[in-house]
Amino acid sequence: MSRDLVRELHLPSGPSIVLLVMDGLGDLASASTSFRTPLEAARTPNLDSICPQSILGRLWPVAPGITPGSGPAHLALFGYDPIDVQVGRGVIEALGLDMDFRPGDIAARANFATIDAAGRVSDRRAGRISDELNRTLCAKLQDVELGSSITVEVRSGKSHRFAVVFRGPGLEGPLADSDPGREGELVRSVAPIVPNAASLATAGVINRFLTEAHARLADDTPANGVLLRGIGGLPTIPSFAERFGLHPAAIASYPMYRGLAQLVGMTKVPTADGARAEFETYRSLAAAYDFVFIHIKATDMHGEDGNFDGKVAAIEAVDAALPLLLRDPPGVLAITGDHATPVSYRGHGWQAVPVLVHAERGGADGIARFTERAAISGSLGTLRMKELMPVLLAAAGRLAKYGA
Amino acid sequence: MSRDLVRELHLPSGPSIVLLVMDGLGDLASASTSFRTPLEAARTPNLDSICPQSILGRLWPVAPGITPGSGPAHLALFGYDPIDVQVGRGVIEALGLDMDFRPGDIAARANFATIDAAGRVSDRRAGRISDELNRTLCAKLQDVELGSSITVEVRSGKSHRFAVVFRGPGLEGPLADSDPGREGELVRSVAPIVPNAASLATAGVINRFLTEAHARLADDTPANGVLLRGIGGLPTIPSFAERFGLHPAAIASYPMYRGLAQLVGMTKVPTADGARAEFETYRSLAAAYDFVFIHIKATDMHGEDGNFDGKVAAIEAVDAALPLLLRDPPGVLAITGDHATPVSYRGHGWQAVPVLVHAERGGADGIARFTERAAISGSLGTLRMKELMPVLLAAAGRLAKYGA
Repeated sequence: MSRDLVRELHLPSGPSIVLLVMDGLGDLASASTSFRTPLEAARTPNLDSICPQSILGRLWPVAPGITPGSGPAHLALFGYDPIDVQVGRGVIEALGLDMDFRPGDIAARANFATIDAAGRVSDRRAGRISDELNRTLCAKLQDVELGSSITVEVRSGKSHRFAVVFRGPGLEGPLADSDPGREGELVRSVAPIVPNAASLATAGVINRFLTEAHARLADDTPANGVLLRGIGGLPTIPSFAERFGLHPAAIASYPMYRGLAQLVGMTKVPTADGARAEFETYRSLAAAYDFVFIHIKATDMHGEDGNFDGKVAAIEAVDAALPLLLRDPPGVLAITGDHATPVSYRGHGWQAVPVLVHAERGGADGIARFTERAAISGSLGTLRMKELMPVLLAAAGRLAKYGA
Repeated sequence: MSRDLVRELHLPSGPSIVLLVMDGLGDLASASTSFRTPLEAARTPNLDSICPQSILGRLWPVAPGITPGSGPAHLALFGYDPIDVQVGRGVIEALGLDMDFRPGDIAARANFATIDAAGRVSDRRAGRISDELNRTLCAKLQDVELGSSITVEVRSGKSHRFAVVFRGPGLEGPLADSDPGREGELVRSVAPIVPNAASLATAGVINRFLTEAHARLADDTPANGVLLRGIGGLPTIPSFAERFGLHPAAIASYPMYRGLAQLVGMTKVPTADGARAEFETYRSLAAAYDFVFIHIKATDMHGEDGNFDGKVAAIEAVDAALPLLLRDPPGVLAITGDHATPVSYRGHGWQAVPVLVHAERGGADGIARFTERAAISGSLGTLRMKELMPVLLAAAGRLAKYGA
C-alpha cells in the first residue's frame, strides 16, 4: 500500500460519524419505470429535509466499469483499497455463516460431494443433501487434528454447502481449488497459486484436513467427499481504529456485513432487522462509539428480486425511520450504498453510487433531493469509494492539516 | 516518481501562460451567508466577461478530505505530486523569512529558550524576548564553523522565533526535534527519523551547531539556548523549466510564496503588494518569460479572519485590476486558488477549488460566472491540482501528441 496520509493526520477526538449504507442503493432509470429510479420515485420527506444542507457526490466502488461483490464494496466503504485488499470467496462464505474469521485465517467454501472408488467426482453436490444431513456430517468433521498450532472450524450452510476456517501461525493463501469444477474428473489436491514456504505449508495443512475428512466420510452415502473452492484469507491490514483513530461499531442484521465490519476491527452490535430496529439500536449505544456503520439489507434484496415497488418501499421505510437518527444528530451523517443493484439487472451493477454527507461544517450544496441524477451536480464530485472515509473525517474536523 | 509524461512531451516554445492564484479562493455556502460564497456574492464584471469563453473545473489540492498547507498546495499548482515531494515545516519557516533555501538544503524552525544548569528546558520561549534581542542573538550565531563544506545561515523572526538553513553536500532529513515539546524536560540531540549514513551525518552536523550555539549563548539571560523543530529539506526534484520546458517567473509579495516558487526554479520578481501592483509588475516583464505565477494573498487573509465582506472585496479588487492582464492577453490565463479558506472555518479547508482556464484554443463552456458551484459543471471536471499544469500546457498547444 502506498503512503497512508489519513493514518498520519487523523486526530484523536472529534464529532461522531454515522455511515448509513443502504445496500444496492443506486439504480437505473429506464423506459419501463417511466425513466425514474427507485430513489426518484420514493417519497422521502425526511431525506428531503436534510438534502439542501448537505453535500452530495458519487462513488465508484472499485473503478469505472467494475461490478463489485459485497466484500470489496464494503472494504472500500471502510476506506481500504479493494484492489490491494482482496477478500476471497471462502472468506465471504465463512462470514455469511457468522463464523469467527480474522485476518491471518484461511477460509474455504466447501461442498459435500459424491466421489467414486477411482477418486473421481460423480456428483459435485452429493444429490443436494438435506440441511439436517449436512449438520450431521459437519459434526463429524469438527475435531480433525492438524497439529497443536492449527485449529479448524466447520460450519453448515444450506443443502450440500458448508465453510471451513483454518487458523494458525503463518498460513498463507490463496490456494487453487480441490474441486475440479466438473463431474467425472479426479478430486485435486489444493496447491498454492504463488508457491512459497508459507503457502506450500498451508496447502499441506489443508490437504491433511481433506485426507482425514474423506476417511471420516468413507462409509457415508451419497456424501462421502469434500470439495473446497475459493481458498484464501485476507492480508494482515491495519485496523479501522489504527488507520482513522475511531472507535467503531457495526449495526447489521445479516452475518456477512457484520463479518466484513469485524474484519477491520469494528465491534459487532446485536440488532433486530430493519431500519427502525437498527436505528433504535443505534440510539441505545451511540454514546459508546464515535463511528457507527449501519447496514440496511432490504434495498438490495428487492433489487436482486427485480422488484421496483419493493425497493421504493424499502427506501421509504428508511426515510420514515430517519428521525430516529436525526433527533440527536451525529457530527457527520453519510448516506450511500455499497454498490448499485439495478432492478432491471436483478443483480449488482457497476454504476457510481450516490452519496450524501450531512455535517455542520460540511457545507450546503442546496440540492433539493438525494437521487442518482442530482448527486452528479454535488460538490463532492465523483470519487473512489475508498476516498469517502477521508472526506467523512474531514467533515468531522478529525484530520490535521497536511504540511505547513 | 512514476513516468513523467509531460516532461517527455513538452514542446520548446508556444504561447505564454499566466497562473493567477487567489490564495484560499474556494469557500462554502452556508445559512449564515444566505447560502452564497464570497465568489458568488462578489461583483466581478471582468471575470464575468471572460467566463463564458473559458473552460471551468475544480481541483483537489492533495486528495479528497485532505486539508493542505501552503507548501503542498503550491507544489501541486506547480505540477508536482504533493505526497511524493514533502516540504517540512522548517523549510516553510525559512521561506517565510525570505531565506535562500534550495533543494538539498536542510531547514529548521528555531526558538530561543531558557535552559537550566541540568540541561532542562525551563522556558521554551525564553519569556518571549523582543524582536531586537532576537536579532542580536541571531548575529552571535551567524558564523558558526561546521567544516569547510557546510554553511549555516540564521535568520530572525518575531519574538523568540528564528530559522536556520544548513547547506552542504549529502545532507538528508527529516530529523527528530531537539525541542522536547514541554518545559522541565532535557534538551534532546537531533536524530534521524530514518537512520542511514547521510541522515546520521546530517544529525552530527546539526548537533555540532547546537553545541556551539549553546556555548555562544551561555552567558545570555533569559535566552541561553536554542530548540529546533521541523528539521528537514526537500528531495532533489527536476526544475519547473526542465519538466515543462517553460521559462518561469513568480510575482508574489509575500516571502513564503516567492520561496515556494524558487524551490522549483522560478525567477522571483520584486513587486509591491496587491492585485493592481502585481499586475503592473506583470505588464513590465511579461515579454521576458513564458510562464508567470502571480500570487494574491488578500483572499486568504480575509478567509483566515472570518471576514466574508473582506473576502468579497479582495475578489472584487482582483476583478477590477483584471483588465491589466487582459489588455495584451497571455496565450493561456488560469485563475484558481491553492486551497479553500472558508470564512466559516477561519482556516484552510479540504474542499475542491474552482479553476478557470481562458485560452484561445481552450474551448468555451458558456458558463456565466466563475463560482464554486458553476465550476462543478465545467468541462474540466474535477482533477487533482497537480494535473493542472498539463492542462495549461495543452491549452497553450505546448504538448506533443502521445504515441502515433
